[in-house]
Amino acid sequence: MRDTVLALITSRRWETIIISIIVFNAITLGLETSATVMASIGPVLLFIDSVILGIFVVEIVLRLYAHRLAFFRDPWSIFDFIIVVISLLPASGALSVLRALRILRVLRLISMVPSLRRVIGGLITALPGMGSIIVLMVLVFYVFAVMATKLYGQTFPDWFGDLGRTTYTLFQIMTLEGWSDGIVRPVMEVHPYAWAFFIPFILCTAFTVLNLFIGIIVSAMEDEAAQDATDERKAIQMDMARILDEVKALRTEVADLRDRQR
Amino acid sequence: MRDTVLALITSRRWETIIISIIVFNAITLGLETSATVMASIGPVLLFIDSVILGIFVVEIVLRLYAHRLAFFRDPWSIFDFIIVVISLLPASGALSVLRALRILRVLRLISMVPSLRRVIGGLITALPGMGSIIVLMVLVFYVFAVMATKLYGQTFPDWFGDLGRTTYTLFQIMTLEGWSDGIVRPVMEVHPYAWAFFIPFILCTAFTVLNLFIGIIVSAMEDEAAQDATDERKAIQMDMARILDEVKALRTEVADLRDRQR
Amino acid sequence: MRDTVLALITSRRWETIIISIIVFNAITLGLETSATVMASIGPVLLFIDSVILGIFVVEIVLRLYAHRLAFFRDPWSIFDFIIVVISLLPASGALSVLRALRILRVLRLISMVPSLRRVIGGLITALPGMGSIIVLMVLVFYVFAVMATKLYGQTFPDWFGDLGRTTYTLFQIMTLEGWSDGIVRPVMEVHPYAWAFFIPFILCTAFTVLNLFIGIIVSAMEDEAAQDATDERKAIQMDMARILDEVKALRTEVADLRDRQR
Amino acid sequence: MRDTVLALITSRRWETIIISIIVFNAITLGLETSATVMASIGPVLLFIDSVILGIFVVEIVLRLYAHRLAFFRDPWSIFDFIIVVISLLPASGALSVLRALRILRVLRLISMVPSLRRVIGGLITALPGMGSIIVLMVLVFYVFAVMATKLYGQTFPDWFGDLGRTTYTLFQIMTLEGWSDGIVRPVMEVHPYAWAFFIPFILCTAFTVLNLFIGIIVSAMEDEAAQDATDERKAIQMDMARILDEVKALRTEVADLRDRQR
Repeated sequence: MRDTVLALITSRRWETIIISIIVFNAITLGLETSATVMASIGPVLLFIDSVILGIFVVEIVLRLYAHRLAFFRDPWSIFDFIIVVISLLPASGALSVLRALRILRVLRLISMVPSLRRVIGGLITALPGMGSIIVLMVLVFYVFAVMATKLYGQTFPDWFGDLGRTTYTLFQIMTLEGWSDGIVRPVMEVHPYAWAFFIPFILCTAFTVLNLFIGIIVSAMEDEAAQDATDERKAIQMDMARILDEVKALRTEVADLRDRQR
Repeated sequence: MRDTVLALITSRRWETIIISIIVFNAITLGLETSATVMASIGPVLLFIDSVILGIFVVEIVLRLYAHRLAFFRDPWSIFDFIIVVISLLPASGALSVLRALRILRVLRLISMVPSLRRVIGGLITALPGMGSIIVLMVLVFYVFAVMATKLYGQTFPDWFGDLGRTTYTLFQIMTLEGWSDGIVRPVMEVHPYAWAFFIPFILCTAFTVLNLFIGIIVSAMEDEAAQDATDERKAIQMDMARILDEVKALRTEVADLRDRQR
Repeated sequence: MRDTVLALITSRRWETIIISIIVFNAITLGLETSATVMASIGPVLLFIDSVILGIFVVEIVLRLYAHRLAFFRDPWSIFDFIIVVISLLPASGALSVLRALRILRVLRLISMVPSLRRVIGGLITALPGMGSIIVLMVLVFYVFAVMATKLYGQTFPDWFGDLGRTTYTLFQIMTLEGWSDGIVRPVMEVHPYAWAFFIPFILCTAFTVLNLFIGIIVSAMEDEAAQDATDERKAIQMDMARILDEVKALRTEVADLRDRQR
Repeated sequence: MRDTVLALITSRRWETIIISIIVFNAITLGLETSATVMASIGPVLLFIDSVILGIFVVEIVLRLYAHRLAFFRDPWSIFDFIIVVISLLPASGALSVLRALRILRVLRLISMVPSLRRVIGGLITALPGMGSIIVLMVLVFYVFAVMATKLYGQTFPDWFGDLGRTTYTLFQIMTLEGWSDGIVRPVMEVHPYAWAFFIPFILCTAFTVLNLFIGIIVSAMEDEAAQDATDERKAIQMDMARILDEVKALRTEVADLRDRQR
């Protein structure tokens, strides 16, 4: 029984069906955003949505039954599980915002399609190497956020009133969106030396982001180059091994020759 | 007869003439944008334009006659064909916008000049390798667009009223143009936690674009490096083959020596 | 006595304690930015801050006693020293801005955690190679700043009134923030040919920044590639050395054989 | 006489003097931008400026005398010549804008300092390889500019009134500065489908700039990698040549051995 379920859920046909259902669900969830469509076929869409959610629940239950606890060892299974659980949460009253999260189901496409899974996997494996730079970034942000809150919190409470607002404003400045005309020029009208705070901040974050960026490029190229270099070195080493074998065989023969002459 | 036409349209002189006509047409179409110029020599420009369109039609007809159906096997021929067809569409009344498309004829320069054709070809051949990342990008956009429409569609109909508007607004946010002062700060006045939606969106798209970017750089370098590495490996392998030949010849001689001693 | 102190301050436990204190101080300094928190436990936070500052002073004094003048030979020690000195400066009246600098103490984490120290070290060692480009950048900025002050200083004193303001405005334009709608379009209403000044400026700085950027990427990759190439070359050279040894040994044997035949 | 002049102007001391004068002139020209400084020591600064201009004229005349027509074969000499000529042009009345160009003299530092000259030289030698992409960029800009002028010229004359204005506006959109809130959203209120024109424009230019960028990075790395690879290949080939020599010498000896046995 369990083997039959396992064979079913790992079959290519099952995979195709689930992917088709996800894509179809993506379309119905997209249609739900249109007031006109909802006015005419709203109940149908909501019914389809409930049916698809049912299918997803059944699929997860089958996978749990087939893999048992091994299910939770695969991070992509946990990802699927969380997404289905979010869809099952009650979404009424104060939690109506959770209804908007139902579209996250479409992200199950990532766990179903191997090439998409590989892209995300690539991103995630690149992160640990970036650890130090991310810690440095957080440190720079924290230091500048505390300073900005102390220096400009009282005069510009909307932008620098507390650590949260300051972090948001500094993130905006880091993306360079309206940093000067929107933020720094008004601040400089009260604090004329504010440029001495914000320009170093921009340079620091630009440099850190640049470093993060270079780190990712270099590691991506490293991987490619390492594989190429290995292939090439293997070819060369095989050639050299053949030469060495020939020379050794020759040496045996010469030794043989010398022995005979004795 | 057909061979004569083929020889004509593939001759260098014909190519030069067509390129000159395209450049000349680019200038006359540019002059047509000036009201002063149109007031004085407008009819002349329009007449020249009709003549040049006539030449292009004749050229396409000659190529169709010379290559027959093989004409449609070359994507650049189809490109030329579509551009000429667009110019022949009636451009009056509601379709007057089509008049503006006549300048697309200048793009025929790309299909005529080999070095430009190669640049575009390079871009197009790089695309399939980027397939997964582009699909991921579309997925991320779709998921965030549906969510934003649900969450902010009623309070900010101009920006998030339907999927089309939301996609446009999210594209603007992705380019970081006025994302904070223009969009997110106003939204945060109604939905104070909107930053928890938009900052992850910015980070997700920045990361995806970065990945697209790195993919293109790495593949461009791969191509160059692979060619260099191959050249180098060939040189080394030829050297090693010579050593191996020498060692083998030596072994034959030693074997010969041994045989003689018996 | 001095050896005991040296053993103490270089022990792993001491390091862990100092790092914990820095992190704890980061949190208390962060809490100080909140008016609500300050109202309830303000005096406690300020007392903790004084205690931690005392610990840092003691730590620096111990390191000075243990290393003596060698202390000032390590740039990271000088960094720690300056940060503690800044915290000791009186921060009342006109200098109250110095209170905001106390958060800089958190940057001591960089000098304590080796992986962060390495990131910063990497940035600093990359700088000298970028020297020429940075000088060029400064030159371009200076030339354009003097020109802009002369050309637009009288009509737009807020943006181009003196070299300082002009440099700030040019920095804003270089980051592309509001360069057109914010600065250049208003200037063009008075000086219609201002685009002929600002567009070359944007292209020049974009090109210089791009070059700086490429310089850093190429040098980062160089380092990686050089190390890889060295490893690989060593492997190949070891293989070749073995072949050479074999061939030489063979030659000795053949020479031996020939000698015997005489 | 001519040899004496040549020896003088190519001596290191002369170079140092000229560089010092340029730097000193940069400072005096910077001071001239300050109204306060001009009010107190303006005449002195202007006098110094005249003296320095005189020195530069003498220097160019000496170089012309020493190198004769060969002077004009070095592009950096032509650069110096043009800069001095610009300084000599009358700068009164309508041409008072030329006074602002005197600061260009500071750029002579680039032609004097070899490392700066190399950076600029590197940029210039990278350009030809980018030729096709630059032509493509110009083509894309021209086609979109003509279309935008035809489509939006009448409704938004300030932005798209003629080819010049449209090119400026498209350049602004390409830099992403205020493209949406500043330009495209207002245009979309009149032409609701304007996004179908501007978003493809942004994607096209982003892709072309990206390609330009990648081209420059790849060519910069190529240069470095080619040199490294050559060094490494030489080391390996020298090793292999030694092996080959040894094997050949061995073969001669074996042949010798065989000859003797006959």
